[in-house]
Amino acid sequence: MTTVSNFLQLFDAYLRENAFRQAPAALYEPANYLMALGGKRLRPLLTMLGYYQFRDDVGQSLPAAMAVELFHNFSLMHDDIMDQAPTRRGKATVHTAYGLNAAILSGDVMLVYAYDFLMRTQRSEALPDMARTLNRVAIQVCEGQQYDVDFETASQVGIADYLHMIELKTAALLAGSLELGAMAAGAPQEDQYHLREFGRLTGLAFQLQDDYLDVFGNPETFGKRPGGDIVQNKKTFLYLKALEQATPSQHQELARWYQTHDENSAAEKVIAVTRLMEQLNIPEYTRQLRDEHQREALLHIEQLAAREERKELLVNYAYSLLDRAV
Amino acid sequence: MTTVSNFLQLFDAYLRENAFRQAPAALYEPANYLMALGGKRLRPLLTMLGYYQFRDDVGQSLPAAMAVELFHNFSLMHDDIMDQAPTRRGKATVHTAYGLNAAILSGDVMLVYAYDFLMRTQRSEALPDMARTLNRVAIQVCEGQQYDVDFETASQVGIADYLHMIELKTAALLAGSLELGAMAAGAPQEDQYHLREFGRLTGLAFQLQDDYLDVFGNPETFGKRPGGDIVQNKKTFLYLKALEQATPSQHQELARWYQTHDENSAAEKVIAVTRLMEQLNIPEYTRQLRDEHQREALLHIEQLAAREERKELLVNYAYSLLDRAV
Repeated sequence: MTTVSNFLQLFDAYLRENAFRQAPAALYEPANYLMALGGKRLRPLLTMLGYYQFRDDVGQSLPAAMAVELFHNFSLMHDDIMDQAPTRRGKATVHTAYGLNAAILSGDVMLVYAYDFLMRTQRSEALPDMARTLNRVAIQVCEGQQYDVDFETASQVGIADYLHMIELKTAALLAGSLELGAMAAGAPQEDQYHLREFGRLTGLAFQLQDDYLDVFGNPETFGKRPGGDIVQNKKTFLYLKALEQATPSQHQELARWYQTHDENSAAEKVIAVTRLMEQLNIPEYTRQLRDEHQREALLHIEQLAAREERKELLVNYAYSLLDRAV
Repeated sequence: MTTVSNFLQLFDAYLRENAFRQAPAALYEPANYLMALGGKRLRPLLTMLGYYQFRDDVGQSLPAAMAVELFHNFSLMHDDIMDQAPTRRGKATVHTAYGLNAAILSGDVMLVYAYDFLMRTQRSEALPDMARTLNRVAIQVCEGQQYDVDFETASQVGIADYLHMIELKTAALLAGSLELGAMAAGAPQEDQYHLREFGRLTGLAFQLQDDYLDVFGNPETFGKRPGGDIVQNKKTFLYLKALEQATPSQHQELARWYQTHDENSAAEKVIAVTRLMEQLNIPEYTRQLRDEHQREALLHIEQLAAREERKELLVNYAYSLLDRAV
């Protein structure tokens, strides 16, 4: 029986085989280090599942799967510099472990290798459009990251702005991962479109769930202390919806909390903002918007011309992740 | 009459038309800023001249020409961070003017747009190989930059190591610029090879000339104060050849100077090291090696299946730059 864990084994073996072994070591070691930190390999699995909707020989999708994983890790490496993040997955970030210059240059070469692996896909007639898809996604991710940075200091961020930002920063790559799998399989454009839309809408649902779990998640299963986004004054959907729904006095209270950076009052702040959000029904609004995206995503899977059990494999995998989110 | 300055006008118009105008401004402004600082546009002109060896409609090479110029500027933007360079062409570098994060992310998006423009080339059957060429060149440039960084602290750097480094860091992109022009024109593989080799060997000659002019150039025409490489203890061909040729006492003297970072003795150091190099006949060795590369480069042009006057246009342009180098 084909399962996602078979796909994961296949990908992990390909990743090990294709670890960077060439010189100069100072360029490639940080790339291997970050790629080996693990993660669920969501994006390459989506590429493989996208391919598998149309063809059995899923090994042929491995170069494209590697491309999206390399691209994702490039963006993590550079984002961690910009966010001054000291750790990732409990280990030192690349710029912390190897220095700023290594994190810049290794990130750059990983981005190039994303294109390099993509162009190893056998179906040569699909390659120009596959490269264009990676271009589009990569531009979207850079723009999304810039909007995320801009929003930190912007005084007016609307809910639509936020949704646009996460569509670029998070959902575009999930959409592109599925689409590239379909393209590598030679799927018709219409099916490429349905998979891309499923990925985009599911990506938005993932991010909304991520924002929700950051405040309301069970710390034991979510793995992080709740309220990290609140402490950092992150303008998530929850915060922006709360502002929208708030009475003038609640609005004032929220805005006041989001001006503090005081570490000592962080716990108090998380409790106060969480209570406000609960009073304003924000968990329900967030679940609603997440579910709307999920429902719309499913409509695209219904229209996809693929075998039912293969569609189910994809949908079940995507849903199994929703509890943990991206 | 077709001249290189016609090509330059054509490219500059295309560059202006295709300046980034989209949002978010914070992402694209630094890219426009750096691209507008000017320069001789050597790499895009090589792409256009490479194309013109085979076809008249040189406007068709503009997307590929834009790709190599974007790639070059991406690498400048990130290298300037790594080198902590405060200025470029007399203006503030991007990380100085816009901050570190802007220089990282704008550089990233320029690299992606290099691929984006490349894929706008009309000859679609050439696109997979053109993307592979850009991949190869981009990897070489990243590796060359890493070797350059490594050499700063390495105790043993040989002349061969140095030549390999400049081949990757400088010559590979000049070779690739010409090759991409030939590919966009649908030239036979053999001619692509001869243009690539001409570019590679000319690129090595350019860098040797650059190193030579940094010490022995006329400051009025070269535009920089001589001896910058010596002050910075750069292990150029001149220094490494001097070490090779030196008597034990000269070797000691050279090595001693290259351990100082004292700003106050910089002028004295430049005079002393320059005199040592003259005593050791280094100017002559450098000219010889440069000329060898040039001669070998010309052999490839002789074998190129193109019209004599078009070959001349390319060769004359390349030679006209040698006095000023890259």
